[in-house]
Amino acid sequence: MKLLRYGPAGAEKPGILDDQGRVRDLSAHVADIAGDALTPAGLARLAALNPAELPLVEGAPQAELRLGPCVGNVRKFIAIGLNYADHAAESGMAVPSEPVVFNKWTSCITGPDDEVRIPKNSVKTDWEVELGVVIGAPASGVSKADAMAHVAGYCVVNDVSEREWQLERTATWDKGKGFDTFGPIGPWMVTADEIADPGNLAMWLEVDGKRYQDGSTATMVFGVAELVSYCSTFMTLLPGDIITTGTPPGVGMGQKPPVFLRGGEVMRLGIEGLGQQTQKVGRA
Amino acid sequence: MKLLRYGPAGAEKPGILDDQGRVRDLSAHVADIAGDALTPAGLARLAALNPAELPLVEGAPQAELRLGPCVGNVRKFIAIGLNYADHAAESGMAVPSEPVVFNKWTSCITGPDDEVRIPKNSVKTDWEVELGVVIGAPASGVSKADAMAHVAGYCVVNDVSEREWQLERTATWDKGKGFDTFGPIGPWMVTADEIADPGNLAMWLEVDGKRYQDGSTATMVFGVAELVSYCSTFMTLLPGDIITTGTPPGVGMGQKPPVFLRGGEVMRLGIEGLGQQTQKVGRA
Repeated sequence: MKLLRYGPAGAEKPGILDDQGRVRDLSAHVADIAGDALTPAGLARLAALNPAELPLVEGAPQAELRLGPCVGNVRKFIAIGLNYADHAAESGMAVPSEPVVFNKWTSCITGPDDEVRIPKNSVKTDWEVELGVVIGAPASGVSKADAMAHVAGYCVVNDVSEREWQLERTATWDKGKGFDTFGPIGPWMVTADEIADPGNLAMWLEVDGKRYQDGSTATMVFGVAELVSYCSTFMTLLPGDIITTGTPPGVGMGQKPPVFLRGGEVMRLGIEGLGQQTQKVGRA
Repeated sequence: MKLLRYGPAGAEKPGILDDQGRVRDLSAHVADIAGDALTPAGLARLAALNPAELPLVEGAPQAELRLGPCVGNVRKFIAIGLNYADHAAESGMAVPSEPVVFNKWTSCITGPDDEVRIPKNSVKTDWEVELGVVIGAPASGVSKADAMAHVAGYCVVNDVSEREWQLERTATWDKGKGFDTFGPIGPWMVTADEIADPGNLAMWLEVDGKRYQDGSTATMVFGVAELVSYCSTFMTLLPGDIITTGTPPGVGMGQKPPVFLRGGEVMRLGIEGLGQQTQKVGRA
């Protein structure tokens, strides 16, 4: 299933993509694509529906119909750093011996095609295409072998980052990762049953048509199962929590000389099988 | 007002402390002590009620009646590090030139007297009494002069920390700050109008009756207004978000030799005017 949320920001309705790429309304069957709807039991209820029998929503998704963040009420937006060896190299940092875990403040979450806004006084706003893992069943201290049973699905994430705030402003990365609009997720969450191998998906990001990132989840240092297991030792992962798993090479900071967003650009990014995002870059 | 949440974990009801220290039920007037109820308009509605006319809840709070986290549905649990010069010294770290901001995963939040559980394989679980600031009005890019208008109130926080996970496990602090039960908040949120100066409150923490922390918010490096303003430049603060503002000296890591929790202890902690917490220490 490709589950999504459509409509005005803050008032999104739950929907599902049908086999012709049209949005069907799920409002009669689930309150939101969030929380309990993402557990195995919740997803099984949705899987029992026939999309062709659900009300058709007018308008081509993304082109004519706004999509919101594909998951609602995200309680934890967990991020993994330096998880591609060649991205660590372009960042001038060593490949970590275990996953680097940081936080994206949940108020940064936006729809896949909403404007990304450069903060006031920012000079180093940058992009990162990433595979997002959406948690389904609660996970606490789960083994790598059991981890995948706790995954509801996957989505595209743009882990927008302010590099000065992340790296030059004392001790932790969290200042530079969670400004409003720094977390587009979607266009939809693709349930795990439709992704044969999350460790072998092509991914790419372009700014104004120039392809900066052109990678694959195949070069991740720590894979999805390992990351879910690892994070679950430090906290209980809850339905609707998202782990965004790091970015391949090609971020702005890694260019020679570095390239940062100035406003007015258009970012396009996507992951094989998960759809794509398009964001105009504005200023807060 | 002293606003609180009482009852079984996950099914707490909203309440208010009357002038005799008894809990009165607010269920008929507000769904939860959370979100919009904490905005200036929301608090004004509650302030118009006469607690003596509200239903009395049986049982002495904390002794006979369980209190839950004093704020529900916390979306961001923002923490400030090294915000007391003498605590920075005992931690072997420099006083930062600007606030250190890190994250406590919201799933760590528990009631003021709930058990704190040491994670499996933890050897360095530690305590930190802290002043928690609860956001009322949304705050984005607010000045220090305007910041206090965005504060709903204050509460006691125990910023329970796993020092090895925080400091020895790559790059950021977030691994060691958000394990389940690592965020007791309460017993109640005291509205800002009742705290004349949040920058001059005595605070203390004891383990098994031994006083380890005995400080005052008067020695904070960055005060409440500055922290609210500062955090609001990196994210929009929303009603019910909590900023916990750092700890004075006396944590276990700072003892010579260091002292960490082993299980079986009782922690008691409090802040002048904000009540106190009591936690048994167990094991996950």
